[in-house]
Amino acid sequence: MSSTDALTPQPTRTVGIVGLGLIGGCLGLDLRRLGHWVYGVARRPATVAAASEQGVVTQATCNLSLMAEVDVVFICTPMATIVPTVRQLLEIVPASTVVTDVGSVKGEIVAAATALWPNFVGGHPMAGKSESGLADSELGVFRQSPNDVKPIETTRSVDVEQVVAIATQLGSQVYTATPSAHDRAVAAISHLPVMVSASLLHTCLNESDVQVKTLAQQLASSGFCDTSRVGGGNPELGTMMAQYNRPALLEALQQYRYQLDTLIELINTNQWDALEQALNIAQQERPKYL
Amino acid sequence: MSSTDALTPQPTRTVGIVGLGLIGGCLGLDLRRLGHWVYGVARRPATVAAASEQGVVTQATCNLSLMAEVDVVFICTPMATIVPTVRQLLEIVPASTVVTDVGSVKGEIVAAATALWPNFVGGHPMAGKSESGLADSELGVFRQSPNDVKPIETTRSVDVEQVVAIATQLGSQVYTATPSAHDRAVAAISHLPVMVSASLLHTCLNESDVQVKTLAQQLASSGFCDTSRVGGGNPELGTMMAQYNRPALLEALQQYRYQLDTLIELINTNQWDALEQALNIAQQERPKYL
Repeated sequence: MSSTDALTPQPTRTVGIVGLGLIGGCLGLDLRRLGHWVYGVARRPATVAAASEQGVVTQATCNLSLMAEVDVVFICTPMATIVPTVRQLLEIVPASTVVTDVGSVKGEIVAAATALWPNFVGGHPMAGKSESGLADSELGVFRQSPNDVKPIETTRSVDVEQVVAIATQLGSQVYTATPSAHDRAVAAISHLPVMVSASLLHTCLNESDVQVKTLAQQLASSGFCDTSRVGGGNPELGTMMAQYNRPALLEALQQYRYQLDTLIELINTNQWDALEQALNIAQQERPKYL
Repeated sequence: MSSTDALTPQPTRTVGIVGLGLIGGCLGLDLRRLGHWVYGVARRPATVAAASEQGVVTQATCNLSLMAEVDVVFICTPMATIVPTVRQLLEIVPASTVVTDVGSVKGEIVAAATALWPNFVGGHPMAGKSESGLADSELGVFRQSPNDVKPIETTRSVDVEQVVAIATQLGSQVYTATPSAHDRAVAAISHLPVMVSASLLHTCLNESDVQVKTLAQQLASSGFCDTSRVGGGNPELGTMMAQYNRPALLEALQQYRYQLDTLIELINTNQWDALEQALNIAQQERPKYL
């Protein structure tokens, strides 16, 4: 964990945000409150107008050339657009500009972006809301939330420090990790739960006895509600996570399947003490993830 | 769903409660508020004293003979003690007394209890709190919660109506179903989620790379918290559910494994449109279970 102190006075920076959706919008609001200059770029003119109106930017336009004078650029576009955006920025930003992103998968993106722009530092603020547009932006969503910064061997520490300093100012708990450790960790705690939870929903939906299916809908209560929540979330986002983090997710799914089979075997062979022991360990260890 | 109207004036009944834990305690509080006489029996003298002090009973003792004059007996003991309690009651209660229970698995219990006492009606109020003792009893926990009443072919409708009338007075949404439909439904929406969720925790706990394991603990947020909640719950209760509902749970686990393998195959073969479609269905159908 970084020891950068949030109370240390921070220089006023000119920060660029490319992509003014929910995360870009929240970031702009916080950065402006902290006294930074925020230059925003969005694809659609309506988004540019809304961003200015909502005060999430100091200045905004559809033209990426606005990034010519910024110290740090946050790319807040969908994942597929991150590397193409870095490519476009090459012609625009000064050599000293640090480029970072907020994508939830890092391996391929960090490798490709760093090859294009050595001052690239992968980031991943684990914050958000169930809503997904600029209109839902609000102050303080990064506060207390983890932000994982992912330097690779060639990343310059001075660039990492700039991104860490801003993340710390936003109130995030900043961790650093390699892109590959990051992708394996988020596969386990974020992408795997989506598939585990969606499979639970499909199990209930595929009940062939109509009476049982209806009764299950009537009796389902808080336990089912919680366990099925992320499986019933945004399908586009779930698919994109799987697509971008495919190897790590497949590995996590295989490990999960092994653990599931172990519990099935304990139940199948009436090993009740061993089952209780396994549930005991789950109960004891869970608080470490909260 | 029963059409018994909660506003219809109900006769004052003498209701027995055997087992004064959380559910027995909550039931006593509500029944007394509704004007019924509540006779409670607990194994330990200290529980009897506490129940009287907390006002959950009109009268309490350790002696089951207190049930000699009650109209309806609710057995609120752990599942293993339900049928043995029915056996003990045979010698005590009048032939007209209706005996019901609150156990979360019904097939074997309803069959065995009905064979002993024809006026047995299986019940399952789906209410509770994370706490588990008499001291945590409170008013109104059954309000708005489903209560599944499970008559079998030989169950007399007049007995069912008595149990339904009380459950309706408590504010529960009352459903009737066969014990086997009940057990399959709760396997899917209550017992399966525990195993699904515990397997997720064990997947993370068995991560062999310490850096990844620690990072996963640092980055885990609300999605992981919700998906892992029931897997980190009471190990004794989870084991008992599996033990008592073993055939239905094993069947649900096999169905779940099939659904999980289907999603794994979609990811493995890069079928992103099909994956998004599956997640779409999960999103669209989930509200039916809330």
